[in-house]
Amino acid sequence: MDLSNWALCVLAAGEGKRMASQIPKNFIPVLGRPLFAYLFEEIKACQFGEIAVVIRKEMQEYLQEFLAKEPRLKMVFQERPLGTAHALQSALPELSSSTEKVMVIYADMPLLRHETLSSFASFFLANQLEVALTTSLVEDPRGYGRIVRSACGEVLEIREEKDCSPEDLAIKEVNIGIFAFDRLTIQDLLARVDNCNQQGEFYLTDVVALACKEKRKLKSYTLPWREEFINLNTPSDLAAVTAYLRNQKNQSLLGQGVKMIDPENTWVDWEVEIGRNTWLYPGTVIEGKSKIGENNRIGPFSLLVDTTTGNSCKIIFSAVEGAVIEDEVEIGPFAHLRPGTQLERGCRIGNFVEVKNSHIGAGTKALHLAYLGDAQIGKKVNIGAGTITCNYDGSRKNPTFIEDEVFIGSNNSLVAPVRIGRGAYTAAGSTITRDVPPESLGIARARQKNLENWVQKKKEREMKKEQ
Amino acid sequence: MDLSNWALCVLAAGEGKRMASQIPKNFIPVLGRPLFAYLFEEIKACQFGEIAVVIRKEMQEYLQEFLAKEPRLKMVFQERPLGTAHALQSALPELSSSTEKVMVIYADMPLLRHETLSSFASFFLANQLEVALTTSLVEDPRGYGRIVRSACGEVLEIREEKDCSPEDLAIKEVNIGIFAFDRLTIQDLLARVDNCNQQGEFYLTDVVALACKEKRKLKSYTLPWREEFINLNTPSDLAAVTAYLRNQKNQSLLGQGVKMIDPENTWVDWEVEIGRNTWLYPGTVIEGKSKIGENNRIGPFSLLVDTTTGNSCKIIFSAVEGAVIEDEVEIGPFAHLRPGTQLERGCRIGNFVEVKNSHIGAGTKALHLAYLGDAQIGKKVNIGAGTITCNYDGSRKNPTFIEDEVFIGSNNSLVAPVRIGRGAYTAAGSTITRDVPPESLGIARARQKNLENWVQKKKEREMKKEQ
Amino acid sequence: MDLSNWALCVLAAGEGKRMASQIPKNFIPVLGRPLFAYLFEEIKACQFGEIAVVIRKEMQEYLQEFLAKEPRLKMVFQERPLGTAHALQSALPELSSSTEKVMVIYADMPLLRHETLSSFASFFLANQLEVALTTSLVEDPRGYGRIVRSACGEVLEIREEKDCSPEDLAIKEVNIGIFAFDRLTIQDLLARVDNCNQQGEFYLTDVVALACKEKRKLKSYTLPWREEFINLNTPSDLAAVTAYLRNQKNQSLLGQGVKMIDPENTWVDWEVEIGRNTWLYPGTVIEGKSKIGENNRIGPFSLLVDTTTGNSCKIIFSAVEGAVIEDEVEIGPFAHLRPGTQLERGCRIGNFVEVKNSHIGAGTKALHLAYLGDAQIGKKVNIGAGTITCNYDGSRKNPTFIEDEVFIGSNNSLVAPVRIGRGAYTAAGSTITRDVPPESLGIARARQKNLENWVQKKKEREMKKEQ
Repeated sequence: MDLSNWALCVLAAGEGKRMASQIPKNFIPVLGRPLFAYLFEEIKACQFGEIAVVIRKEMQEYLQEFLAKEPRLKMVFQERPLGTAHALQSALPELSSSTEKVMVIYADMPLLRHETLSSFASFFLANQLEVALTTSLVEDPRGYGRIVRSACGEVLEIREEKDCSPEDLAIKEVNIGIFAFDRLTIQDLLARVDNCNQQGEFYLTDVVALACKEKRKLKSYTLPWREEFINLNTPSDLAAVTAYLRNQKNQSLLGQGVKMIDPENTWVDWEVEIGRNTWLYPGTVIEGKSKIGENNRIGPFSLLVDTTTGNSCKIIFSAVEGAVIEDEVEIGPFAHLRPGTQLERGCRIGNFVEVKNSHIGAGTKALHLAYLGDAQIGKKVNIGAGTITCNYDGSRKNPTFIEDEVFIGSNNSLVAPVRIGRGAYTAAGSTITRDVPPESLGIARARQKNLENWVQKKKEREMKKEQ
Repeated sequence: MDLSNWALCVLAAGEGKRMASQIPKNFIPVLGRPLFAYLFEEIKACQFGEIAVVIRKEMQEYLQEFLAKEPRLKMVFQERPLGTAHALQSALPELSSSTEKVMVIYADMPLLRHETLSSFASFFLANQLEVALTTSLVEDPRGYGRIVRSACGEVLEIREEKDCSPEDLAIKEVNIGIFAFDRLTIQDLLARVDNCNQQGEFYLTDVVALACKEKRKLKSYTLPWREEFINLNTPSDLAAVTAYLRNQKNQSLLGQGVKMIDPENTWVDWEVEIGRNTWLYPGTVIEGKSKIGENNRIGPFSLLVDTTTGNSCKIIFSAVEGAVIEDEVEIGPFAHLRPGTQLERGCRIGNFVEVKNSHIGAGTKALHLAYLGDAQIGKKVNIGAGTITCNYDGSRKNPTFIEDEVFIGSNNSLVAPVRIGRGAYTAAGSTITRDVPPESLGIARARQKNLENWVQKKKEREMKKEQ
Repeated sequence: MDLSNWALCVLAAGEGKRMASQIPKNFIPVLGRPLFAYLFEEIKACQFGEIAVVIRKEMQEYLQEFLAKEPRLKMVFQERPLGTAHALQSALPELSSSTEKVMVIYADMPLLRHETLSSFASFFLANQLEVALTTSLVEDPRGYGRIVRSACGEVLEIREEKDCSPEDLAIKEVNIGIFAFDRLTIQDLLARVDNCNQQGEFYLTDVVALACKEKRKLKSYTLPWREEFINLNTPSDLAAVTAYLRNQKNQSLLGQGVKMIDPENTWVDWEVEIGRNTWLYPGTVIEGKSKIGENNRIGPFSLLVDTTTGNSCKIIFSAVEGAVIEDEVEIGPFAHLRPGTQLERGCRIGNFVEVKNSHIGAGTKALHLAYLGDAQIGKKVNIGAGTITCNYDGSRKNPTFIEDEVFIGSNNSLVAPVRIGRGAYTAAGSTITRDVPPESLGIARARQKNLENWVQKKKEREMKKEQ
């Protein structure tokens, strides 16, 4: 359908106080991207001639990324919060002279689908209307403006809930909140909207009554209620919107051959990619720009952020952030990989091991209680339990180099900068402060003494003290 | 409504065998408080003249906290488990002489609401009744006593399921289990209840048939089925009751501006307070008397117990118990804070770090693999990876003092009691047994030796051994 | 019912491409056992004279365990994937000569119940049929073959969805996919099925139209839709089947007196046993052959695999695999027990502690940051924080022996093989390379030196460098 002489006005200036959010409610991130991104994609799919988003000035930083992506998008500022009619009035002068029709939606319907907008535009054109509104019959109309009709069924007005009489409140046909107008008609009508209501605001919904009085060509487009019409006002709405999108994402992944033990307990951000036959166990959260290969097992109880994996990996009960992981790597339980971690094929990172900004070669194992930071570690290295790269000297971060096939003994402190040469060993309990040449043993520990009968003497000492 | 001449009798002596619980079923903790506490609050809201709770003697310890809170509450013992009629009979002599009306409920309806009790009392008084019962029409009447009515619709009796014929079982009107009586009438009726039934018990429900026969003024109060009428008998009922209360709590938090990625995966105890715009991630459990500030991020996979936080903190993949945390503190992943932990503003406690009974100053970091117990740590201290306060000498716990701006090297053992002076350093791998003066370096480690070609010799030795 | 002259043919040769699984879809493990095991138990309960499972040759390894358990079961190979009619045709010649009736089901209905099969057989016999099919009326018939009936209501044919006209697609009566045949009849009919359809396959469903044309005695058995009829084709179906079985398992556990804070967040494998009044917290996964005693608390966030526990244990935020745990043991948070771990009564394993292939005596504590591997540890031992058994020397695994009532100091490295005698102590920070006699102190560390004013000198050095 050719909508090139249409403008879409998106009213996004609402304050959203009930959301109790520092970020404007329509830009709160859900599944890793601002809510507006979901609506934005649907809007783009409609091919309107232009799109005007009405916001408050302080919201403009949030709109920048969208302006950069879509030249038809423009930003309009509503200077003062005088109501939705005023918001639309702010936008009209900014529209191109070739725009003849205007569709209006609220940004706080983040789940709206483009098919709905397109078919509403068709309805408007087919009936040669000046004004069109969308309505739905709902079980529980609370929170919505009611559709007041004449005895013969014609729409007379939309009455905001706050202005409703008890009889009005019983009406079950509600305003969904999508409008279409002839541009000249709406300019004309808006000029006459007043603010004589409970809130003292200029309501866009009042143009319906005006249009009706003036016998403008007006019709309602009635749709069965769908989740896409959810309004985002409260944290509870936000949870519902999140659940809807999450279910969509999970179903899409299942459709691609991803397995989930329990989709109700799996949280995957919108832009995450996951390969076929990867199994997600309960309590798996995958966020950001993560890209997961095939035949992996992830979870239970794992958090992955901005992480890339190959195939046939296992990540259990771990937190992984900003890591790049090759095939057949095993992680966890209780491992923590931080940004800059690169693990080559077949690495194993075990329990209570942290890796940060380090490259670890193929087949290397760090299985127990270790901190590897700013380290370059070769292939087939064995990192003993309790090994710590002492990368920070109180002033700066220093690198540790461990060459191929090195054996680091347990409870070692590797004081960086330091290099352990190929095939070398270090003795358990050593603090290694100088380089160890290849094939050598680095050792730095005191000789053991056994003080016989020490326990007896200790007890005697303690008894004396207590006397 | 004035209920000052009413008594409420709460029948709580049931054994609850099907619950398989060591604690009496009505006192099992749900969302951090005994189930009876939920019913207790509703009861209190009704302003009955007196409240008698019928229990078995061995249950009295569980009722103490409620007796302490409410002078109108009294405890009545049912000596032997002879049935609900007998339970009520035990209570009547204990009631004040000014009590003229008696309402009876079962403690195993933990979700009952005070509005229901009040409106039932109004119904009783408005109809000038001697006996009133509550009924509901349900889809699946299994487990409930059925309401047997005459051809003209009058209630004839309540038939317990175990005594039902196949035709009776098809009746869909059931006894909810809330009764109201004129005091003299019920005294009179109870005296004539017998125990000629499958269970050999004296059923309170039998008074209905007696009242009917004697043409007492009796009416039923029929209510639509609501979750508040759930009976608590089995672990499955307990899970349903828990789910109901949990949903109530979560909706209340959402209504206060708390955010939850997934309310279905968030468990917050009833008395926990959480500030606006704190985000709870999936897998968050907050228990006990916790009090969480604003703008925090908690979870995924975190357990907080009896913990207080300030604002703008982050707690990820961690277990926190009995801690007091100031603003802008970051915890986790994989941190464990135990009782007596106090963290000043801007502290960071990282992975595999345990803190117990310690005060940690503003801006101090313990980011990796550490145990801090019984320690007083100043501001801007850096605790190296692998640091352990050796607070236990086999006999007693000793304190560690670390003054401001100290740098503790990696893999240190701080043998308490010990003090590290302001601005001092300790060398990696040191076991610190004596105080370190301010601005000094404490060092306790052996010099490193490198044994060249050691690996070659090791191989030769091993080959020899195998020969 | 005597089904000794019946054969059941289970068609299991489907490729299941949409499942994107390496394992054949009907053998994917769900709740710890292959899906086919669930169907297999129901089949066995029916007492068919023989059971023929039609598979592809490469699937035979998956069927072995079932063949071993059930002598009436036989395996039939379908050589080429020519369709379900061809699959059945492969099976018929393999049936015993005494078999007169044949029931046919698809293996991809893993939730089928034996009562359904039995009552269908009764229906077939009671009506003296030659051909019987099962149908159901469903709201959403997508994905199913439709039942085409004559004006007077007789079944004419089953039309596969891919061959349906738009009118056919509106039919809401569908083929469930269970058939019964007189053996000679079906042999006769199968010979005439052709493959003139969209897929070029021989459909078993085509025998219905053939039987109808030939006026065979045919009837449909119409059942209300039940979850047991779910077809397993996609990962989404797999999730639904898993949810169904999981709910069954959880309800069964609740019925036995197990408590769950939230059954929706509890995952227990089918063969796991759990004792009365054990509480499962949210985020509990129990897998494999685990056997859990009474009055335990498990979770939140815990993974148990093939683990046995006694009574009154606590396991919090931990991963436990292949461990045997006695009464009153406390584990976690953040503990990891690996196969071969045995914990005697009253042990406590705390945070960031790993135990592998070790026996730990009654009352012993390892509360912080430790690795215990290949160790025999006595009773009432105290393992200091940061203790590591250095069990691997780069060539082989060596044992550590710690006798009763030993006190291991913090940050110790115990270089195996090594023995710490009864009642001995080791000093904090020691690397113990030789045995410590009973009641003695083993110590191996350097003396501490304090370099006064070192920090001032360090700053001067650094400033010089930067100049």
